[in-house]
Amino acid sequence: MQPISSLQNPTVKLVRSLADKKGRRETGLFIAEGRAMLERAMDQGWVPEHVIATRPPHLWDEVRPLMVTEKLMGELSAQNNPHEVLACFKSKVQPHPGKSGLWLALEEIRDPGNLGTIIRTADAAGASGIILIGDCCDPFAPECVRATTGSIFAVPLVRMKPEGFVSYAAAFPGDVVGTAMQAKQDFTRPYAADCLLVLGSESRGLTTDISKACKQSVRIPMRSGVESLNVATAAALMLYQAAR
Amino acid sequence: MQPISSLQNPTVKLVRSLADKKGRRETGLFIAEGRAMLERAMDQGWVPEHVIATRPPHLWDEVRPLMVTEKLMGELSAQNNPHEVLACFKSKVQPHPGKSGLWLALEEIRDPGNLGTIIRTADAAGASGIILIGDCCDPFAPECVRATTGSIFAVPLVRMKPEGFVSYAAAFPGDVVGTAMQAKQDFTRPYAADCLLVLGSESRGLTTDISKACKQSVRIPMRSGVESLNVATAAALMLYQAAR
Repeated sequence: MQPISSLQNPTVKLVRSLADKKGRRETGLFIAEGRAMLERAMDQGWVPEHVIATRPPHLWDEVRPLMVTEKLMGELSAQNNPHEVLACFKSKVQPHPGKSGLWLALEEIRDPGNLGTIIRTADAAGASGIILIGDCCDPFAPECVRATTGSIFAVPLVRMKPEGFVSYAAAFPGDVVGTAMQAKQDFTRPYAADCLLVLGSESRGLTTDISKACKQSVRIPMRSGVESLNVATAAALMLYQAAR
Repeated sequence: MQPISSLQNPTVKLVRSLADKKGRRETGLFIAEGRAMLERAMDQGWVPEHVIATRPPHLWDEVRPLMVTEKLMGELSAQNNPHEVLACFKSKVQPHPGKSGLWLALEEIRDPGNLGTIIRTADAAGASGIILIGDCCDPFAPECVRATTGSIFAVPLVRMKPEGFVSYAAAFPGDVVGTAMQAKQDFTRPYAADCLLVLGSESRGLTTDISKACKQSVRIPMRSGVESLNVATAAALMLYQAAR
């Protein structure tokens, strides 16, 4: 069978629509590209809605791949060097976070590349999941998914409104630790096994309500003249410290 | 005086050429955008060759700003929301790294955003400088400079060929610690005050020669299924651990 080359193919049209937030919201789908990422999805028990490939991918037996030309794959891929295979999945967000283990809450994180890097680090550090508080960027945006290098399939994600997070934090049985420039305690303290870490945006930090919801506050020391760390850097330091 | 609006103005032409590596190589100049970044440059004693602004910037007395229209600034800026001011500086790379303090060596780092984030973190952690081994991306590329948020002006940078680095590492008086997936020792060990950390690329790690130049090797633990950390994440964990 000839590979598809037409942008008018309905599956091709669907996949193209997922580059935009509107398309993802309307369909509930997102794209992941490349064999390494898709193998992680398989390992984690995900099954895609569609698989598009330029060569037979031999991944999921139950999903028949749509074979396309390399030129068309170039149109579908968000990357400069398109992979041989991509797939669309139903995005999953959990309704509630757990009440034990290591959780990371992010308030108003806006950069999808940073969020993806944080999801990747949370996976590596063995975190239980990530809570997105308030107006955060879309974790299923192509730039975020790519930066996770497959951890998007392994790390539970929860969205919460600030009010809901405040109640959750109050009931959380372990440590609830926010970061703040003016905190007295260094971040290299011991952490409880059940631990909720809370990070705000680089420029504004945590809002007052979320800051008050934290039971403890720590700071990451910085050389004089440095105003802040990248949020993904701060998250990595906190996650690996709490996971010790 | 009317602000400049023409792309034919010689300074404007020069600044535009710096978006490309060729322009930066031919002139030895690079661009930094935004007041916060330029204030850090001032604090660190840098004086720009040119300042371009849409409003009087009141920064360096000795450099007369070229006033331009907002439309023209939009053409000059690498950012979606252009700042009111940008400046060109002579790029500085040190001929040799120091033989004491905390140094971070990066082999074949290719992503300018990651490099910028690492420079920012090295600054915050109080590192003495960064060594770029072999074929690395340009630290003065706009994406890197931006990600440093001003730390490009504070952290000494050195470029070394692999052979030169091997000799330097052999003569380094303190710890010389590489990271490797298969290393037995956890990265949360104590480090000497004089410490040279060595990181390779995410996908390939360190080359054999550079790996052999390390006196010790450590690993950052990762949950099963995770193949690697973002290089800026790994650098942050190592830098803050060694700086304790």
